[in-house]
Amino acid sequence: MSFDPKTLRFDSAGLIPAIAQDDETGEVLMMAWMNAQSLARTVDTGRVTYWSRSRQAFWAKGESSGHVQTLVDLRVDCDRDCLLLRVRQVGPACHTNRRSCFYTAVRDGQEVELMGPMKDT
Amino acid sequence: MSFDPKTLRFDSAGLIPAIAQDDETGEVLMMAWMNAQSLARTVDTGRVTYWSRSRQAFWAKGESSGHVQTLVDLRVDCDRDCLLLRVRQVGPACHTNRRSCFYTAVRDGQEVELMGPMKDT
Repeated sequence: MSFDPKTLRFDSAGLIPAIAQDDETGEVLMMAWMNAQSLARTVDTGRVTYWSRSRQAFWAKGESSGHVQTLVDLRVDCDRDCLLLRVRQVGPACHTNRRSCFYTAVRDGQEVELMGPMKDT
Repeated sequence: MSFDPKTLRFDSAGLIPAIAQDDETGEVLMMAWMNAQSLARTVDTGRVTYWSRSRQAFWAKGESSGHVQTLVDLRVDCDRDCLLLRVRQVGPACHTNRRSCFYTAVRDGQEVELMGPMKDT
């Protein structure tokens, strides 16, 4: 069956959540949002492009930092209201320079930092 | 630092997206939503409890199906507006009886089904 992006269920702001997962390690790197156009750019270019809600602009991941995400495989969930992006990530995915945005665990009511910022190479 | 759920950034409907990931395999199983109370129930009971937007009710995962999610580790992202739940999943996570909700890939413009429904045991 051919994929029709119009069958996706975008929210009232025209957005759909997109989870980025490292294709090699399975690590969940980040969650951000896409609109129909940023998804089309991602598929067309193979470079993951989100929609920045704060800037109301396209956010080609790594455009300024060099921490590019390359799309390896695109997945759609059963309800068609969430995307899973299997990606290759150059360097850190997080703006704090950590590999993943999910670097804080909550254990016994305490916040535990699981990883520090990556060193510049 | 002790964890204060009030520091999380819930959306205008009082919800935060929660990604469930199999703690053993790393497979991303599903994405659903929590409000402050469902998160508190999840942490207090160790049984993952979402907020159903369609039913406007607590959704204790597996309550009717038996396909329970047990919380192994809770993670918060850098912006504090998304949760990652490392879980143990009994049986399928998806209401279609598939292990993961992300069973559809989009490849060369075509939808490809990656897994079928699990057999009843």
